Amino acid sequence: MRKIDVAFLPAETEKRDLAQTTCVVLDIFRATTSMVTALINGCPLIRPVQSVEEAWTVARGIPAALLAGERQSVRIEGFDLGNSPREFTRERVDNRPVVMTTTNGTRAVRAVAGAGELLIGSFLNALAVCDTIQKTGRDLLILCAGTENQFSLEDSLCAGLLVHRLWETDNSAVELTDAAQGARLLYLQAQGNLLQAAATSKNGRRLYELDLAADVEYCLRLDTVSIVPTFAADCIRLSAT
Amino acid sequence: MRKIDVAFLPAETEKRDLAQTTCVVLDIFRATTSMVTALINGCPLIRPVQSVEEAWTVARGIPAALLAGERQSVRIEGFDLGNSPREFTRERVDNRPVVMTTTNGTRAVRAVAGAGELLIGSFLNALAVCDTIQKTGRDLLILCAGTENQFSLEDSLCAGLLVHRLWETDNSAVELTDAAQGARLLYLQAQGNLLQAAATSKNGRRLYELDLAADVEYCLRLDTVSIVPTFAADCIRLSAT
Repeated sequence: MRKIDVAFLPAETEKRDLAQTTCVVLDIFRATTSMVTALINGCPLIRPVQSVEEAWTVARGIPAALLAGERQSVRIEGFDLGNSPREFTRERVDNRPVVMTTTNGTRAVRAVAGAGELLIGSFLNALAVCDTIQKTGRDLLILCAGTENQFSLEDSLCAGLLVHRLWETDNSAVELTDAAQGARLLYLQAQGNLLQAAATSKNGRRLYELDLAADVEYCLRLDTVSIVPTFAADCIRLSAT
Repeated sequence: MRKIDVAFLPAETEKRDLAQTTCVVLDIFRATTSMVTALINGCPLIRPVQSVEEAWTVARGIPAALLAGERQSVRIEGFDLGNSPREFTRERVDNRPVVMTTTNGTRAVRAVAGAGELLIGSFLNALAVCDTIQKTGRDLLILCAGTENQFSLEDSLCAGLLVHRLWETDNSAVELTDAAQGARLLYLQAQGNLLQAAATSKNGRRLYELDLAADVEYCLRLDTVSIVPTFAADCIRLSAT
């Protein structure tokens, strides 16, 4: 029986030993969606870092590296890319390593860096993530990046989608924690119009205010790519599986 | 515009200044349900304390006090009452102050003891709690007690019920945070069979294992009493309103 759990905030993972656990990190608006997009467009690796200073330092050591990231949803001054997935085109990122720092997403990746396996999830690659999880026998923790240490609706909706699919595939083989059940319920209630639900989130409203409605729509596209990035040795790359 | 927020765990309220906020604490299985039951049955006040030792000490200073509480859902040795709401009958608690310590509920009350106003909620008094909230102009934080610092499904369902009712009453006057929206969505999905949803929670299953199915059913009774306990000066009593 595999246990499926959801953490709605990175702080909930503190003091947890995740060495035998598969983790999926979700930061739908927009870090993990951008990471998936970069890798599908030829970026060989993403190095997530926590501060702007660290980004500059790390980038100096990686030939041809691009700097990407945001603070308050806006591109960091002097960086090549912001955090809009629509910027990570093949023209920009093919064969270019990316050093990335975002407010919530890279912090979430770091919070569970000790996991037995760490996958990068989004609506875009949700089906591929579920397929990968099915192949491992490990317990699962889905980590929502949240927004400045607060519950994020769009991350929780995607967590609920993953839980629901794993549950539907074989509900006799999985045990849902209360948090996983809660995420599944809220996803089921919203599934008829995920875009509308996500658009009313704090992050969704901020993106609309910044004239980034196209980002909101892009980040809600479901099952459009079949890759699963994994984090290991400080870098996010396409998994070998 | 009043802001409505939900904290799924007491830890989320750390470092928050709640002096201008109305808080509602929910520990459906079973502390806040038991508190509401005790007060409707003539108990004049409940003194929530955090440890068994503190309970004994405090009780010595209150004439005719009853000791109530649990650890791992079981009555504490030497105490008069456990934490089953069905124990708090008029025969037992009329005119008897209660000193209470429970694993999650009393801790949650203490976590937001600095709130501008602190209400004790449950399914039993959900309508009365909403009426009281309507009368205050303050922002609202609904705090789920959780289970040993983990998300609790039954508390979140009740939080979602409160959010939904406040939203339905006048959705132009309230602003829901992402967490409040999430709680509302999961409540709406489960509302057709709240008992079934709550029974699959970790706490619900434990109560069934302890042959306390009657407690689960009791705690899910909706709008059966019209009182609203409040916490002030270290004690929970019926509010004067």
